[in-house]
Amino acid sequence: MGEQLSTKHLLGIKGLSTEDIQLIFETADEFKDVINRPIKKVPSLRDITIANVFFENSTRTKLSFELAEKRLSADVINFSSSNSSVKKGETLLDTVNNILSMKVDMIVMRHSSPGAPHFLSRHIDANIVNAGDGTHEHPTQALLDTYSIREKLGDVAGKKVAIIGDILHSRVAISNIFALQKLGAEVMVCGPITLLPKYISSLGVKVELDVRKALEWCDVANVLRIQLERQHIKYFPSLREYSLYYGVNKKLLDSLNKEITVMHPGPINRGVELSSDVADSEHAIILDQVENGVAVRMAVLYLLASVSK
Amino acid sequence: MGEQLSTKHLLGIKGLSTEDIQLIFETADEFKDVINRPIKKVPSLRDITIANVFFENSTRTKLSFELAEKRLSADVINFSSSNSSVKKGETLLDTVNNILSMKVDMIVMRHSSPGAPHFLSRHIDANIVNAGDGTHEHPTQALLDTYSIREKLGDVAGKKVAIIGDILHSRVAISNIFALQKLGAEVMVCGPITLLPKYISSLGVKVELDVRKALEWCDVANVLRIQLERQHIKYFPSLREYSLYYGVNKKLLDSLNKEITVMHPGPINRGVELSSDVADSEHAIILDQVENGVAVRMAVLYLLASVSK
Amino acid sequence: MGEQLSTKHLLGIKGLSTEDIQLIFETADEFKDVINRPIKKVPSLRDITIANVFFENSTRTKLSFELAEKRLSADVINFSSSNSSVKKGETLLDTVNNILSMKVDMIVMRHSSPGAPHFLSRHIDANIVNAGDGTHEHPTQALLDTYSIREKLGDVAGKKVAIIGDILHSRVAISNIFALQKLGAEVMVCGPITLLPKYISSLGVKVELDVRKALEWCDVANVLRIQLERQHIKYFPSLREYSLYYGVNKKLLDSLNKEITVMHPGPINRGVELSSDVADSEHAIILDQVENGVAVRMAVLYLLASVSK
Repeated sequence: MGEQLSTKHLLGIKGLSTEDIQLIFETADEFKDVINRPIKKVPSLRDITIANVFFENSTRTKLSFELAEKRLSADVINFSSSNSSVKKGETLLDTVNNILSMKVDMIVMRHSSPGAPHFLSRHIDANIVNAGDGTHEHPTQALLDTYSIREKLGDVAGKKVAIIGDILHSRVAISNIFALQKLGAEVMVCGPITLLPKYISSLGVKVELDVRKALEWCDVANVLRIQLERQHIKYFPSLREYSLYYGVNKKLLDSLNKEITVMHPGPINRGVELSSDVADSEHAIILDQVENGVAVRMAVLYLLASVSK
Repeated sequence: MGEQLSTKHLLGIKGLSTEDIQLIFETADEFKDVINRPIKKVPSLRDITIANVFFENSTRTKLSFELAEKRLSADVINFSSSNSSVKKGETLLDTVNNILSMKVDMIVMRHSSPGAPHFLSRHIDANIVNAGDGTHEHPTQALLDTYSIREKLGDVAGKKVAIIGDILHSRVAISNIFALQKLGAEVMVCGPITLLPKYISSLGVKVELDVRKALEWCDVANVLRIQLERQHIKYFPSLREYSLYYGVNKKLLDSLNKEITVMHPGPINRGVELSSDVADSEHAIILDQVENGVAVRMAVLYLLASVSK
Repeated sequence: MGEQLSTKHLLGIKGLSTEDIQLIFETADEFKDVINRPIKKVPSLRDITIANVFFENSTRTKLSFELAEKRLSADVINFSSSNSSVKKGETLLDTVNNILSMKVDMIVMRHSSPGAPHFLSRHIDANIVNAGDGTHEHPTQALLDTYSIREKLGDVAGKKVAIIGDILHSRVAISNIFALQKLGAEVMVCGPITLLPKYISSLGVKVELDVRKALEWCDVANVLRIQLERQHIKYFPSLREYSLYYGVNKKLLDSLNKEITVMHPGPINRGVELSSDVADSEHAIILDQVENGVAVRMAVLYLLASVSK
């Protein structure tokens, strides 16, 4: 692992070079071996303190980062906004500078405002990892998704990937589009017209309203979660109707006369965007994504830590 | 510690053999020595990751498990439902499979639904420890309770134990009944008729409505907590009346012409089910129960970890 | 580090000798070196279990203690009242005795009732560190504040320190007054008459209502936070009016014809009690206070641990 990333922060996929992504993948290969050994830890970051600063609720992303950090033997502190001084009127920069004054080396941050980690990166010295900023980017999710495609299909280049569902509210979709394109895949987005942002075709992706056509086209379907908790306005008449028109189920997949790989960032609404017989089938790599998430995040943290030195 | 448990999960006392209980007790004896040494840790589980998955609030049980895990040098991750994807509509099995995909070896779970850990144990490979499932079982509590009786009185066999209070809502009572019977003790339950479940006599226990008669009969009184937070219906007119008719106090114990050991699973409502002069007397082994809880849980985790291998 | 503290608890500054404070400072000097090394940990407390028992919300104090504990290699357990048995009607002493029965060596406690840690110290064996008890004392804050003055100005003795703002609700102010006087500084308090407690002049401090006069007098201004969340009654007409009459800003400081050091315990309400150009200026040592907080708390924990033995 002699190479270095060209950046000291992971703010988004947009600013990441293809070489950086490849380096992260190769490093993740090694860490995936580690976490499947009986002894799952390495001492790599034992002199590093990492703060997980989550201004937005998260379970699986936070758990995945925390496990990655502990398996690298880092010291971990957790800061969440629900019991924080943010409520007392403190600015984001003051909060983070306070944490840094306690000699924290790296900050993993989730924030509801797009650009929050970018703002911070211009003012502080620590490495910053964006763990999701509003509806903007979620770079480690895109890295683990593309890593999982590479693992399943051998390569990402030349593959056709359809991202299906709520593209409008999805930082996962945006980061995946950037990562897939950098790695040479073709990308299509598919969903109800109300859930497709107007700018989306300017990103060089195909747009499809009919989920059957999307599935016929693709090698991989990345089925997004309907994020009920984000929808104050109704973007479609009912969950039942969404499921009827956009739900991916076995009957639909069986009718395609080919096999496609099914992904989902989780948590799944079974019976809404994905039926159980698909989620639990051999074509689904949903739990591989979760496993790879720890390896990819170990790789990101490991590589960033050596840039700062 | 060459022997093995006959089970890879601790789901309840009901399915546990007497030999298994004895093995847990003998192992706990050794760990009780450990936690009373200046160096309270052993490296036994340092390659094991344990997830504490609490879908129901808990303080002392969670703290006790966490300390047991840390003293075995395990890596610990905490997952609680209050900030979890469970609220986002994910199934229990998906949640747990996600945690397992992150290479967790053991799950300590509390859930409000009776049978939840049994359901999981049929679908996953990790060791599961039931830390309380609804009003069903709370096996480690019963193990630490009977371990504390054995420690105080030399043996559990032949002893008379009265469980006093809210039997209806108590997983502690049910698990204690099973454990005491397997170890050869006689068991009586005592409480207001509204708090005694109808099936209770079918378990082979004596039933008594008069607390004085129960105390006259027993060697050990396990006084349960009035769980105000569980009672949406009123099972008795007032706390004052409960205390008058079922509260265990010094005057009552002094009138017995014999000495009995007093237990309580905590937290105590002082002046309700137990008076302070009893709780703080030399006959009460309430804080021993807490101390033994860590040793017994270390024994359970240690023994289960070697079954999986 | 051969010397010992004369106390086994840190309950307040009032009961602390000047020699104890000096010993804490000298020990903190050594730990400040440690946390600025690449390897920020020492194995000093690796056989010690510390419980952080916070009955009141806290972010920065808890984080600072947690980092101090981890850098001393202690085992750390966190107990907060929001998910605790305190809500189930348990007494403070029972809660703490339960935690101690799990073989905890040291308790760092924040509680809303003045005197709560003092009460506990009379009943339990573990070392207790008061992390704030109501409006009474916050000794580690005063230690880190005076340590930061000593670091910036060479010595505390002979310096003039003005504490500005809400003295009435501030345990920081009370503990600072005691620490500054023990170390030979002169102290003035300044704020609206409604926020100055009536007993304050009996503590031997100057009282000033005019913030300009306070600033003209002092070498160091410790600007307190307006704790909006504590004020059920209105002590002043509006934040805007407070800021106009008591806010410390660059224009005011520039007009003094001398340079003063500015401190703030955080979190800052920028534009209320302190303007941004002052908070971010070279005269502000606010982030040094945060950094020193970890070193001072390491010193306190390290020194107390050796008293118990």
